[in-house]
Amino acid sequence: MDTETSLWQRSRLAAYAEITSIAMRLFLDQGFEETTIDQIASTAGISRRSFFRYFGTKEDIVLGDLAKRGELVRDALEQVPPTIGPWEALREALHAVDALSIEPGVTLKIARMMYGTPSLRSRSIEKHLHWQSLLVPDIRRRLGIDHDDIANPVPAAIVASAIACLDVAGEVWVAGDGRADLASLYDQAASGLRAGS
Amino acid sequence: MDTETSLWQRSRLAAYAEITSIAMRLFLDQGFEETTIDQIASTAGISRRSFFRYFGTKEDIVLGDLAKRGELVRDALEQVPPTIGPWEALREALHAVDALSIEPGVTLKIARMMYGTPSLRSRSIEKHLHWQSLLVPDIRRRLGIDHDDIANPVPAAIVASAIACLDVAGEVWVAGDGRADLASLYDQAASGLRAGS
Repeated sequence: MDTETSLWQRSRLAAYAEITSIAMRLFLDQGFEETTIDQIASTAGISRRSFFRYFGTKEDIVLGDLAKRGELVRDALEQVPPTIGPWEALREALHAVDALSIEPGVTLKIARMMYGTPSLRSRSIEKHLHWQSLLVPDIRRRLGIDHDDIANPVPAAIVASAIACLDVAGEVWVAGDGRADLASLYDQAASGLRAGS
Repeated sequence: MDTETSLWQRSRLAAYAEITSIAMRLFLDQGFEETTIDQIASTAGISRRSFFRYFGTKEDIVLGDLAKRGELVRDALEQVPPTIGPWEALREALHAVDALSIEPGVTLKIARMMYGTPSLRSRSIEKHLHWQSLLVPDIRRRLGIDHDDIANPVPAAIVASAIACLDVAGEVWVAGDGRADLASLYDQAASGLRAGS
C-alpha cells in the first residue's frame, strides 16, 4: 500500500514538474499573459481537464509553493527563542527558509515576469496575506499579548510590514537588474521604516 | 456644448449611484458572492452590457472610489510641509482625506463584507498597491533621496507599511464590532511596529 502510494505520488510529482517546466518555457518565450492554459496543456500532451488536476490557475504554476512556504516560515518562526523580538525573529525565520536569497533557478527574467504581470502580482499578494494569518499568532505571543486580545493591531501590523519589506526588496532587486543583495535590501527596508518619524 | 456634457455626466452619475445602491442592497441581503451581475442588471432594469459601461467588475461597485482616493491622498501628502517626517506626513494625508475615520454610510455589515470576502479583499489590496506607486515619490523627496535612486527600498517600505497599518486597523475595527476608534487603531499599529526590535 505504502509503495503504491509513493509510486503514484512520484508520478504525480514528475508530471507536476514537467508541466511546470513546459509552462515556464512558454511564459518566458512568449509572455505570461500571451500563453493560454490550452497551449500549456497541448504542449504537455495532456487535456485541459488534466491540467486543472495539477493547478488551479495559470498563476499557480509560477507561484505554486508560496502557500506551502508560508507554513515553513511559521515553523521556522516557532523555533526562534521567545526572548527574541518580533522583527529579529521574523528576519531569522525568513532567512531560515531562504526567503531572503534568490533561488538558484529564479533568473532575472522570471523575477521580472513575477513583478511585471498584474495577475501574478495580485495573486502573490493574496498568498502573502495568507502568510500573515499564519505568522501573527507567534508574534502576538512574542509581544506578550493575550491570544484572545484581538483588539491589538500591532502583531498584524508588524507581520504585514515585514512581508511588505520582502516584497519591496524583491521589486528593487528586479529594478536594479539583480545586482543588489536581497537580504541587504530587506534589512535596509526593515530598519529604514522604523527609523523615521 | 458644456451644458450637454454636464447633462450627460449628471445622468451618468445618477445611474451610477442608482446601480450602486441597488447592488449594495442585494449584497447585504443575500451575500456578495451569491449576487450575480445579471441579477444586479435585471433589478436595475439595464442590460448586462450596460452594467459593464459603469463597472469593470462586481468588486468595483464596493471599492469603486478606492483608486480615485489614492490620488486624493497623494494630493494631500504633497500639501504637507517637506520638513515633516514621512510617517507623520502620511498620517496627516490619510487624516485629511478621512481615511482614518469610518465613512458615515459604511455600516459594520458593509465593512464585514469587505474584509470577509476574499475577492473584495484582494481587489482592495491591488488598489492599495496602486496608492503605493502614487505616494512613494513624495516620501522619497521627503527623505532627501535622489528621484532616480531606485536602489533605496525605504520609501516604498514606509508607504507599504503605512497602508498595511490602515488595512490592519480596519480589520481590527471590524473584529471588535466597530467599537474602537479607527484613527487610534492606526496610530497604535504605526507606532507599535516601529517600537520593537
